[in-house]
Amino acid sequence: MTKIADHLISPKWIAPVMPKSCVLENHSVAILGGRIIEIQKTKDILRNYPTTRNVSLPNHLLTPGFINTHSHAAMTLLRGIADDRNMMDWLSNWIWPIESKLVDKDFVYDGTLLAGIEMIKGGTTTVADSYFYPDASAKAYEALSLRAQIGIPVLKFDNSWARGEKEHISRGLELHFQLRNDGLKKVALAPHAPYSVSDEGFKSMLQISEKHDLRVQLHLHETNQEISDSELEWGTRPIARLEKLGFLNERLQAVHLTQLTQSEIDLLAVRGIQVSHCPESNMKLGSGICPLAKLRAAGINVAIGTDGAASNNDLDMLQEVRTASFLSKAVTNDATTPSAFDCLEMITLNGARFLGLEQNIGSIEKGKEADLTAIDLSSIIHQPIYNPVSQLIYNCTANDITNVWIKGKQLLKNRQLCLFEAGDLDKNVENWKTRILNIIEDMP
Amino acid sequence: MTKIADHLISPKWIAPVMPKSCVLENHSVAILGGRIIEIQKTKDILRNYPTTRNVSLPNHLLTPGFINTHSHAAMTLLRGIADDRNMMDWLSNWIWPIESKLVDKDFVYDGTLLAGIEMIKGGTTTVADSYFYPDASAKAYEALSLRAQIGIPVLKFDNSWARGEKEHISRGLELHFQLRNDGLKKVALAPHAPYSVSDEGFKSMLQISEKHDLRVQLHLHETNQEISDSELEWGTRPIARLEKLGFLNERLQAVHLTQLTQSEIDLLAVRGIQVSHCPESNMKLGSGICPLAKLRAAGINVAIGTDGAASNNDLDMLQEVRTASFLSKAVTNDATTPSAFDCLEMITLNGARFLGLEQNIGSIEKGKEADLTAIDLSSIIHQPIYNPVSQLIYNCTANDITNVWIKGKQLLKNRQLCLFEAGDLDKNVENWKTRILNIIEDMP
Repeated sequence: MTKIADHLISPKWIAPVMPKSCVLENHSVAILGGRIIEIQKTKDILRNYPTTRNVSLPNHLLTPGFINTHSHAAMTLLRGIADDRNMMDWLSNWIWPIESKLVDKDFVYDGTLLAGIEMIKGGTTTVADSYFYPDASAKAYEALSLRAQIGIPVLKFDNSWARGEKEHISRGLELHFQLRNDGLKKVALAPHAPYSVSDEGFKSMLQISEKHDLRVQLHLHETNQEISDSELEWGTRPIARLEKLGFLNERLQAVHLTQLTQSEIDLLAVRGIQVSHCPESNMKLGSGICPLAKLRAAGINVAIGTDGAASNNDLDMLQEVRTASFLSKAVTNDATTPSAFDCLEMITLNGARFLGLEQNIGSIEKGKEADLTAIDLSSIIHQPIYNPVSQLIYNCTANDITNVWIKGKQLLKNRQLCLFEAGDLDKNVENWKTRILNIIEDMP
Repeated sequence: MTKIADHLISPKWIAPVMPKSCVLENHSVAILGGRIIEIQKTKDILRNYPTTRNVSLPNHLLTPGFINTHSHAAMTLLRGIADDRNMMDWLSNWIWPIESKLVDKDFVYDGTLLAGIEMIKGGTTTVADSYFYPDASAKAYEALSLRAQIGIPVLKFDNSWARGEKEHISRGLELHFQLRNDGLKKVALAPHAPYSVSDEGFKSMLQISEKHDLRVQLHLHETNQEISDSELEWGTRPIARLEKLGFLNERLQAVHLTQLTQSEIDLLAVRGIQVSHCPESNMKLGSGICPLAKLRAAGINVAIGTDGAASNNDLDMLQEVRTASFLSKAVTNDATTPSAFDCLEMITLNGARFLGLEQNIGSIEKGKEADLTAIDLSSIIHQPIYNPVSQLIYNCTANDITNVWIKGKQLLKNRQLCLFEAGDLDKNVENWKTRILNIIEDMP
């Protein structure tokens, strides 16, 4: 019987991630209504779906789309303005002063577009973002057709978008109600950090996140200074403070975690929190090293984030997870873990679990939405190929991504954006650059 | 007066490396007889050399060609065969058994071509290589027009190329005499490691290196096991053993150095040894972490190497130095060093110093040979650009390299090789892959 789908994709290899270490050769996927409806040998699928358009990718590996679990997309406009500075110097003396003079909805919209283009070109199909003017981010993700968790920034400091924690939260809830039925976008709370959020703020967010079933993303134990400042101000380490507030739970997405004791790791495991590991930002800012191997050994789900391009300075998930792997092997003196397949899982299915979307995305399985990334392995710099997943994790960069689909819609084709037109973005980015340079010139 | 050169190169920016933190905008270089004869403002140079062909690179940064100070080029054929294994397991149970069954001059020639193409495409203009059949490597570098230090492997174990240390050395000297007047290739001794070379071997190489003024490249203090094995066999750490043998001197190029005490660092500084830091290989093999910041603080010249693609798994100098920078910032909790300019210096002028070629290459200066790399920064993923050297070090990969010259000859043009024709290399690489897979199948 002739079956029908919207389209077929026939790559040389498929790494479905579920099961983890599987590589299918000469298999295809059939996509209908944005979902994967079949995974079969290519010769069978072509026979079963004779009239359906087939995208043939004879040199490519097909994987689930990559999931970037922590970024501040709009900060891409600040990429490279303050390199080679320690985290708190970078943040307090550069990023915050510039942001306070500049950030508005246009900045966020343009910056998010710029980041989104880089992410799509790099095979990322879902991002967990948090930044001021999340309504402007949402508009940019809508324009890009990119899947996003949009984190509502909550902090006790006033800024042009909102004043005080309450207003941040209430403006965030407005956006949540607007986007409640959006197929690609989901709102989360994003309390900035233990040092910038009050106990009252955390308590209020705890209630709201329960009531509206919102995920909560938080920078946590990012630097040593965060710990010592907390000990001075609250008489305790941030994790202990949050535990007392009841804030450690399975809705919490903890980001960074470069400063952890074993008992803190055990506690995080018991509480079922999710972890976003952002090695390149932590390393570049001299913040510390997240103990990836220990977290994984404790059974904690660890996903990967690039953080903002202002501290990375790119949004390339392949380089990011390679760094995560290499760094972990280096500090543990154990090269056996994470493996290449572990790494692919971290940037796909672990990311989906982190976001609570593992029923829908994160692997290539029948019934899941078709968020897919194709990588061209034909270049001579990828030869010879003994295992395409090893090549992907240890050789490839964003540049090797050629085709991207989100919910079955093609966003990238032969390295070119095919849904979104960048229009005047180039010019707008140049304008932001000029304004930023003027601000820096006037800085003390 | 009308001046004449072979050609001009007019990029948007030049990072000459000497002086270190300089970026010239709208300047050009004039090249004659393989050397840089002038660096001037573009408008002046075009007026002074009105009849000379000008290569206009309006979106590009021009830097000295990158110098990869440690590789085993032919091992690119073994890229990805044994990932996620610790160094001695990887070497003893995978690499050596495969090599012993397979390596011959054709393997080395084809593997070196494959590596050389990747290096040229990645902006590398000089490589310090060491592997069996160095005569075959030399032939490949000749075919590629790539600048190389060809290390003669010396070890006490027999192999198909040579038996015992003496034969390795004498075959190496033959090659040295052949290449003595070669403009691009230079022979060095490459004793494999303290655990694979006898005291007699080191003593003999000490004499020969002095007599023929040869550099000596050695894997040193690569793993903890190397140290403990040495303590068992020689009653001392390898560096102490070499010091007793008089082997620590300014001709020594020490590679890896992941296990160092402060007094060893001080000794290496006093002895004037050169260091090649290969962070990605060390990390991937779980070997340890070279204390880059301490070595630099001691005044030791540290250059960067990728090691072989079998433990990296690429030959991308930009990713390598970024990893070096990030790793150092992470372990020292000091994001201020190395800076982006330090990084560019490490992959260029420090590499030239390491090889003893700093009078000739490593910076863009009048009188130096024209080994040059151009990087296209026009892609949207590199915007905005506040400092092109920050973009180069923190954003770019080998893929952004578009044009490469060695001694004034253009090897890469718009990302395409223009001197070397790969011919049947693809097919040969596939054949080697099949043979390697057969060997692995038969392994116990």
